[in-house]
Amino acid sequence: MEEVIINYIHKPNIKNPILIEGLPGVGNVGKLAAEHLIDELHAEKFADLFSKHFPPQVLVGDNGVVKLVNNEFHFAKSPNKNGNDLIILVGDYQGMTPEGQYELASKILDLAKEYGVKKIFTLGGYGMGKVVEYPRVLGATTNQELVEEMREYGITFPKGEPGSGIVGASGLLLGLGKLMDIESVCLMGETSGYFADPKAAQAVLEVLTKIIKVEVDFKKLELKAKEIDYMTSKLKDLEESIAEDKRDELNYFG
Amino acid sequence: MEEVIINYIHKPNIKNPILIEGLPGVGNVGKLAAEHLIDELHAEKFADLFSKHFPPQVLVGDNGVVKLVNNEFHFAKSPNKNGNDLIILVGDYQGMTPEGQYELASKILDLAKEYGVKKIFTLGGYGMGKVVEYPRVLGATTNQELVEEMREYGITFPKGEPGSGIVGASGLLLGLGKLMDIESVCLMGETSGYFADPKAAQAVLEVLTKIIKVEVDFKKLELKAKEIDYMTSKLKDLEESIAEDKRDELNYFG
Amino acid sequence: MEEVIINYIHKPNIKNPILIEGLPGVGNVGKLAAEHLIDELHAEKFADLFSKHFPPQVLVGDNGVVKLVNNEFHFAKSPNKNGNDLIILVGDYQGMTPEGQYELASKILDLAKEYGVKKIFTLGGYGMGKVVEYPRVLGATTNQELVEEMREYGITFPKGEPGSGIVGASGLLLGLGKLMDIESVCLMGETSGYFADPKAAQAVLEVLTKIIKVEVDFKKLELKAKEIDYMTSKLKDLEESIAEDKRDELNYFG
Amino acid sequence: MEEVIINYIHKPNIKNPILIEGLPGVGNVGKLAAEHLIDELHAEKFADLFSKHFPPQVLVGDNGVVKLVNNEFHFAKSPNKNGNDLIILVGDYQGMTPEGQYELASKILDLAKEYGVKKIFTLGGYGMGKVVEYPRVLGATTNQELVEEMREYGITFPKGEPGSGIVGASGLLLGLGKLMDIESVCLMGETSGYFADPKAAQAVLEVLTKIIKVEVDFKKLELKAKEIDYMTSKLKDLEESIAEDKRDELNYFG
Repeated sequence: MEEVIINYIHKPNIKNPILIEGLPGVGNVGKLAAEHLIDELHAEKFADLFSKHFPPQVLVGDNGVVKLVNNEFHFAKSPNKNGNDLIILVGDYQGMTPEGQYELASKILDLAKEYGVKKIFTLGGYGMGKVVEYPRVLGATTNQELVEEMREYGITFPKGEPGSGIVGASGLLLGLGKLMDIESVCLMGETSGYFADPKAAQAVLEVLTKIIKVEVDFKKLELKAKEIDYMTSKLKDLEESIAEDKRDELNYFG
Repeated sequence: MEEVIINYIHKPNIKNPILIEGLPGVGNVGKLAAEHLIDELHAEKFADLFSKHFPPQVLVGDNGVVKLVNNEFHFAKSPNKNGNDLIILVGDYQGMTPEGQYELASKILDLAKEYGVKKIFTLGGYGMGKVVEYPRVLGATTNQELVEEMREYGITFPKGEPGSGIVGASGLLLGLGKLMDIESVCLMGETSGYFADPKAAQAVLEVLTKIIKVEVDFKKLELKAKEIDYMTSKLKDLEESIAEDKRDELNYFG
Repeated sequence: MEEVIINYIHKPNIKNPILIEGLPGVGNVGKLAAEHLIDELHAEKFADLFSKHFPPQVLVGDNGVVKLVNNEFHFAKSPNKNGNDLIILVGDYQGMTPEGQYELASKILDLAKEYGVKKIFTLGGYGMGKVVEYPRVLGATTNQELVEEMREYGITFPKGEPGSGIVGASGLLLGLGKLMDIESVCLMGETSGYFADPKAAQAVLEVLTKIIKVEVDFKKLELKAKEIDYMTSKLKDLEESIAEDKRDELNYFG
Repeated sequence: MEEVIINYIHKPNIKNPILIEGLPGVGNVGKLAAEHLIDELHAEKFADLFSKHFPPQVLVGDNGVVKLVNNEFHFAKSPNKNGNDLIILVGDYQGMTPEGQYELASKILDLAKEYGVKKIFTLGGYGMGKVVEYPRVLGATTNQELVEEMREYGITFPKGEPGSGIVGASGLLLGLGKLMDIESVCLMGETSGYFADPKAAQAVLEVLTKIIKVEVDFKKLELKAKEIDYMTSKLKDLEESIAEDKRDELNYFG
């Protein structure tokens, strides 16, 4: 069996494309952002990627029909004349081993090269270990000019961050892509990292959509963010009420 | 050394075959069911599958003779004119790594294709974390029509279950098979998951035998179930008597 | 880099050979036995086996010179006219992964085939979890006739033992060898499994040397066994004296 | 994707070269030593080595530009007429699996062969588990003559050390190199192993530079050593002051 299998559903006529990657990761920021983009731009799936570097697993839909875990390439026409068409990569999993990660990134870049992709944006979260009210968007790029260009969009490049580098597809597409002369940018939304974080995803998308010159509605992401906020506040209430009960008990004996 | 070696003992003349998989897994439900089917239908082994993705191990028979751990293909003629012959896959182990699982499923599907298999049934357990009096049989399939067809046999397709998908050979044969246009059904018998569960295996087989139109006797499985029931009840008695002793001790001091 | 590299020092003229394997394992019984055989028969190394399935490590000799970890093939002429020459396999390590174990066993069997090896003896320990005064030698073979033949030498084949099969090179050479029509026997000396066990190695060798019709002196193994006995008895004394001190202390306060 | 990719920046004209390896390891002694040598000799990078056996990771520079984790080959002309030019190997990581380590060492040796390297020095630390005031330099080599030669430079070859052999690139380049008839020496500076140890790096370099007949300034390493000394003494003070506080507390109750 091949390491990576790419099955085309159809081969769209893609012009001047930008590749956007949003696979699972810290706070699922990249995945949430890329999936929102697919929904809002009505992007269409044109290829499936399967691999023995994913878990040996099928997912079962509500209708009882299975799906082999995969990554998917979606396509959206640019709304602008002579603008950049978009290839959006989402999926259930990243590769499970270092070797698998390299194999997968390598095959994704082959597809990017085939379609003449000149720029890649990889989307992810930057784990802060605490709740972030107003998430910043951190950046990393393949060359100095891109850093300057990205600063204009409010992306920050704090010295020494991320200190441990960028691990996984979001990093590897930049690193391996650089060897293939593909310019790339990684956008990381600050997130607690404790749960799926639509707010960080929105922060990332607000910047990205400006750069790639598309407009999207954020209502659905905002709704998801409110749901998460509600759940976390309920959790906090519960914790506080438990703590109070304990204090009461102590007073009773006191 | 090749990843997977299939050694044919002989090449039977198989007509219109259905492949049934029952490898080790949750509650060993699939393995118990498939082995019972082999026994009752007097199915005959026609091929061995060895792989470096299995443990590096031989098993030693009561007679002192070793057997390299393997998977085995068995063959049973259909009892019905123009019915479906059966290929039944059983074995000591599943692949030990994700890559190994994919390689093995891929080679098993190659054999299935070679014999013109059009439908696969994979058998397994669905772990409930508690003892189940009357196990239901859950299903998952490769397409919507099959779901409807299977419902007629009393198989249930509860929304959102199994939530974590189906991991291992039982899932992968469906997922990879779908890519090769092989229709497949996974049948999962509810089981505690704490021990080998012949009752769940029987529940799965009762449904399967109706679908594939063969009749089998369940006495041996029922006997095994009674043995397990006896052992678990003994275990329960023991636990209760220990708990009682402790209560007595407390009363003594009370 | 190739999976396994075999470097010949010279290609001896080997007649009617038997292969004897003694790699590290439970109680290092096989390794001790095979190394003793090499010493006593003045067997000569004729090939080195290196592999990326061994640890990435060199050992440093007392003279400061390194040796890449390896397995080694040694050769001893039969003392009997038209007897069986011996190929003895020893080494620092076994393969570190299941795949590596299969690759290594496969290459070792290729060499065995090349030299026309018709019978293999693999030597190992059978862990009892307690000190064994008079270790028995358990057997497992590739066919029923060999079981009967081996029983005549006092080798026992207890029903249901070893229950978990034989893991590693000692098992795999039998299992994979069987697929290549090579007759093989695994001899396992009972051992506590807590430390290197020359006594179990001697028990295995006493049987093996009768079978292969060579005579060896066991003085060196007996000496090693005495050293181990001395060390373990010292350890036992120490434990008892500590226990006694504690009792005295308690009496002091009693 | 290839296991190992070597990208040449340019192909220098290298004469009579010696290869010096200093990859991350115990106390980062080898890495610190090799990097210091590169700095002081103004060695120039001429090739990058990337591999799927490294972590799937990019590092982010202070300027926001990423770098795929790698190993690097640097080149320095000999200061002496007809002296040995130097190839210095440094990097972010070693291979993450045994197989990866072997693949990487094998490719590094291919490059060494290509450039006609006749001798390799691998640099590393020897973990002592305690702070070492005056670190000795231990050696291991590929043949007896080299041991004698190295002794003249004050390198020690204590019997039975390192008892567990040499693991990783520093060992494997010797071991695999020996199979390719490349003479090699491993130099290990004694170090606590608790933190990066510039003092041990200096000890190693002082010996190495005498052997390869180059002169380097050690001021920067000495400065780093002082920084580490300062930090560890601060840490010690802190520990002592905490211990004293506890004693005071006890006195208060005493």
